[in-house]
Amino acid sequence: MYTAATTVRVRYAETDKMNVVYHGNFAQYFEVGRVEAMRVLGYSYKEMEADGVIMPVVELNCKFVRPALYDDLLTIKTLLKELPTDYKITFCQEVYNEQGKLLAFAQVVLYFMDAATMTKTTMPNRLAKGLAAYFSG
Amino acid sequence: MYTAATTVRVRYAETDKMNVVYHGNFAQYFEVGRVEAMRVLGYSYKEMEADGVIMPVVELNCKFVRPALYDDLLTIKTLLKELPTDYKITFCQEVYNEQGKLLAFAQVVLYFMDAATMTKTTMPNRLAKGLAAYFSG
Amino acid sequence: MYTAATTVRVRYAETDKMNVVYHGNFAQYFEVGRVEAMRVLGYSYKEMEADGVIMPVVELNCKFVRPALYDDLLTIKTLLKELPTDYKITFCQEVYNEQGKLLAFAQVVLYFMDAATMTKTTMPNRLAKGLAAYFSG
Amino acid sequence: MYTAATTVRVRYAETDKMNVVYHGNFAQYFEVGRVEAMRVLGYSYKEMEADGVIMPVVELNCKFVRPALYDDLLTIKTLLKELPTDYKITFCQEVYNEQGKLLAFAQVVLYFMDAATMTKTTMPNRLAKGLAAYFSG
Repeated sequence: MYTAATTVRVRYAETDKMNVVYHGNFAQYFEVGRVEAMRVLGYSYKEMEADGVIMPVVELNCKFVRPALYDDLLTIKTLLKELPTDYKITFCQEVYNEQGKLLAFAQVVLYFMDAATMTKTTMPNRLAKGLAAYFSG
Repeated sequence: MYTAATTVRVRYAETDKMNVVYHGNFAQYFEVGRVEAMRVLGYSYKEMEADGVIMPVVELNCKFVRPALYDDLLTIKTLLKELPTDYKITFCQEVYNEQGKLLAFAQVVLYFMDAATMTKTTMPNRLAKGLAAYFSG
Repeated sequence: MYTAATTVRVRYAETDKMNVVYHGNFAQYFEVGRVEAMRVLGYSYKEMEADGVIMPVVELNCKFVRPALYDDLLTIKTLLKELPTDYKITFCQEVYNEQGKLLAFAQVVLYFMDAATMTKTTMPNRLAKGLAAYFSG
Repeated sequence: MYTAATTVRVRYAETDKMNVVYHGNFAQYFEVGRVEAMRVLGYSYKEMEADGVIMPVVELNCKFVRPALYDDLLTIKTLLKELPTDYKITFCQEVYNEQGKLLAFAQVVLYFMDAATMTKTTMPNRLAKGLAAYFSG
């Protein structure tokens, strides 16, 4: 299993009149989590796009447990439990506040797509190599 | 069953560099769908909040089938298949483009909450009355 | 002078914990206003982009007079006081609520750019023709 | 003069189909800049709100010089050139990319408001004390 964590500070713009982070904005926090998880592996999402592979989100299943508040320093945990075997990759993601309370968790499914042909493809080698160490044996 | 439909024009701001609507922005489209579905029933979400009841989203399960494009005039369908029996209400929602193609669909779960005490409550009477005609018999 | 008006309903997502629309979201309302002003002229911004011309915003000067509230049905007025004489076009834009109160106003400057070469260009003919009737004599 | 700097990583959600950061999203970057500038002074915006003072933006004048790109690590500089003498405070803000190129700059005017009465007020003492050292003599 591969896990990574990064932090995000809640912006005023991300709150709504319920005094909490608008639920739809968690999609951005999850995005930041995945992007930073890839960066740690030595192959950034930006580099992957430059190499012609994009990763559209095809499924987002999210549960909101507790509100995220303005100025909270959130920790976004990103877990890859299984290596993708085809064009599909599934992340588990969790958002915690500074008190270590779980605020939300999600399962996010993305496809590897060839940007030029817009057809499904498999995980790029550089990403596979970065992940290999976490799934050996 | 109660169903309602409304339209949303895709803004430039809602697209991303993949040339499509950022997946996280569909949460806003679903919100617009639910809000307009309530307005048709004669009890707007704004009025309900003024009456002290809020509806936080506690679960969002969404599948993205086809991309939504800039300037698309989307139709957001909102379906309530069952009357809530407690503090929980579940909507099914679908997004179609002008060609009638399904772009995304979601199951969205919300709670009725008393805003003053922040405790769970049941569906307000005015909303129940508005829905009754669609579930009689 | 050319003037156009369109309406936008304030979304929950657009509010912040100050109970009003986040100031940065007015940029989207102004965008909607300009886009609909072009559509009325018979040449949509989408068509113009398909023809290879884009219009990045290079200057945004905005004053916020009164708050926009959740569920307000805003009217966005877009005024073009002078025809562009080069690559630059300047819109005046105003946001009103349903009571006719002015909430915000802005001067927005955009460039006409050739998307292929990313160099400045002049207003496309189709847009010039659409505007001509409003500036004759 | 008081100056502070902070960094923001451009999110995918913040880009648009022009392949750059949507101009309206710079308002969020400026917000982050001001908030972090206050935190350094030992009095966070969140604390100030808890003390009953809010700071709505009443004017935003921004020029966009170069595009901000996906995954750019932006530096947001926030400058306070003069101490406020009444309810009004004016920040100058600049956004730079990693190559030190200026992408955008803005003048942002905010009011100090008493949240309970929604009337104008003056700068809270804790903020004034934090700033004093930078404006002595």
